[in-house]
Amino acid sequence: MSHEKAVTACVVVIGNEILSGRTQDANLSYLALALNSVGVRVREARVIPDDPDTIIATVNEVRAKFDYVFTTGGIGPTHDDITSLCIARAFGVPLILHPEAKALLEMHYRQGELNEARLRMAHVPEGAELLLNPVSRAPGFRIGNVFVLPGVPLVMQAIFDGFKHILAGGKTVLSRSITCALLEGRIAADLGTIQDGYPCVEIGSYPFFGQGAYGTCLVLRTTDQALLDAAAAEVRAMIRKHGGEPSPENTGA
Amino acid sequence: MSHEKAVTACVVVIGNEILSGRTQDANLSYLALALNSVGVRVREARVIPDDPDTIIATVNEVRAKFDYVFTTGGIGPTHDDITSLCIARAFGVPLILHPEAKALLEMHYRQGELNEARLRMAHVPEGAELLLNPVSRAPGFRIGNVFVLPGVPLVMQAIFDGFKHILAGGKTVLSRSITCALLEGRIAADLGTIQDGYPCVEIGSYPFFGQGAYGTCLVLRTTDQALLDAAAAEVRAMIRKHGGEPSPENTGA
Repeated sequence: MSHEKAVTACVVVIGNEILSGRTQDANLSYLALALNSVGVRVREARVIPDDPDTIIATVNEVRAKFDYVFTTGGIGPTHDDITSLCIARAFGVPLILHPEAKALLEMHYRQGELNEARLRMAHVPEGAELLLNPVSRAPGFRIGNVFVLPGVPLVMQAIFDGFKHILAGGKTVLSRSITCALLEGRIAADLGTIQDGYPCVEIGSYPFFGQGAYGTCLVLRTTDQALLDAAAAEVRAMIRKHGGEPSPENTGA
Repeated sequence: MSHEKAVTACVVVIGNEILSGRTQDANLSYLALALNSVGVRVREARVIPDDPDTIIATVNEVRAKFDYVFTTGGIGPTHDDITSLCIARAFGVPLILHPEAKALLEMHYRQGELNEARLRMAHVPEGAELLLNPVSRAPGFRIGNVFVLPGVPLVMQAIFDGFKHILAGGKTVLSRSITCALLEGRIAADLGTIQDGYPCVEIGSYPFFGQGAYGTCLVLRTTDQALLDAAAAEVRAMIRKHGGEPSPENTGA
């Protein structure tokens, strides 16, 4: 990894349903990829329950530690949607009815449908800016460096895509993955030597098995194109030295 | 949620590949379900990078806070497999070559294949107990209340299933999910009233949309069967009151 100051983020997934195993989180991987595309690196993620003390303490810890924080979940109309109130408490401000958010919901719901429960979704911490929701109108919001998003993946993604251009990112991480049919224990020593020679390139080694195939996927990540090319060439040569054939290279995460 | 003392766990997923978005974690949901089946509740999860300071600080924080800690990832043969060394440092003990682990690897590999890189997988913190791996032999280990497992899901699951009977769990959480074709904003107020009447039953509300269907899934969780039955009956009646039809109930996560 290159040594210039990276712009960092923490993703906080809020929801008992993830911790019970009922639901498989899909938001972390989406945000990780999407944030990297604008030069922001997810350095940590937390999955926490719908518990006020835990939400408040976690948000206050990570907003001090990372450049950006993205929360998902808990901003709907029901009793278990407590994220907005907890964020307000974390920032020490009141939760207020936001006139623009209320107007958005009034346009979305038919006469008489905007009940008290749904109006919860128009409440944000004082001083927060709305993050518009093109799908179902109820907005997310930003306060300080914390971006508060819903848990439903399609809605979360639509909101994120609407504001991601405002994030002040650093350099984008470039990556290259090279697969070979060699077990990682066989190439581990030589791979470590290559890693030692390229301290600014993060080299990950991921074994795979199953369906009659086995091998190792090597992933190189750095912000520097020339270093990436040079390290990838050494990895390919190393694979051939051990009798393997490097795959065509894939770019991506 | 019932108020007797629950047995709690934290899952720590270690790996740059999850934070880059390259790989979607599958271990948290498996562990959450499997731990609940033996009466242990996952209360938090962390996803952290292959960074020694972060691993050491996180493990020391969460092992003091939860009854059990389960780490996944970073115990293979390559340079980026640093979990075992970090766990040793977190506990302030040396990393040692474990004779039994070495013997297991010697049986698994052919003559001459057990190189120095692979021998890394036979190193554990002093005082650790091995967790046997029926798939690929390289073991996990337990030290104190921390269980150290590999990241490859099939191998992780095989090791976990081999030791889960030794965990001292509390009561198993029972759950019931009821789906209806009503939007959650419509039933939110009445659902909140039911939740107020059953403080020991955790009631979650999860909206769904797409493929022409929409509605809400209500999930009730508690350790008390009678409370679960009573709360579920109230939820069904409430759905009917709003003109909906409750689905057959599913048990599970």
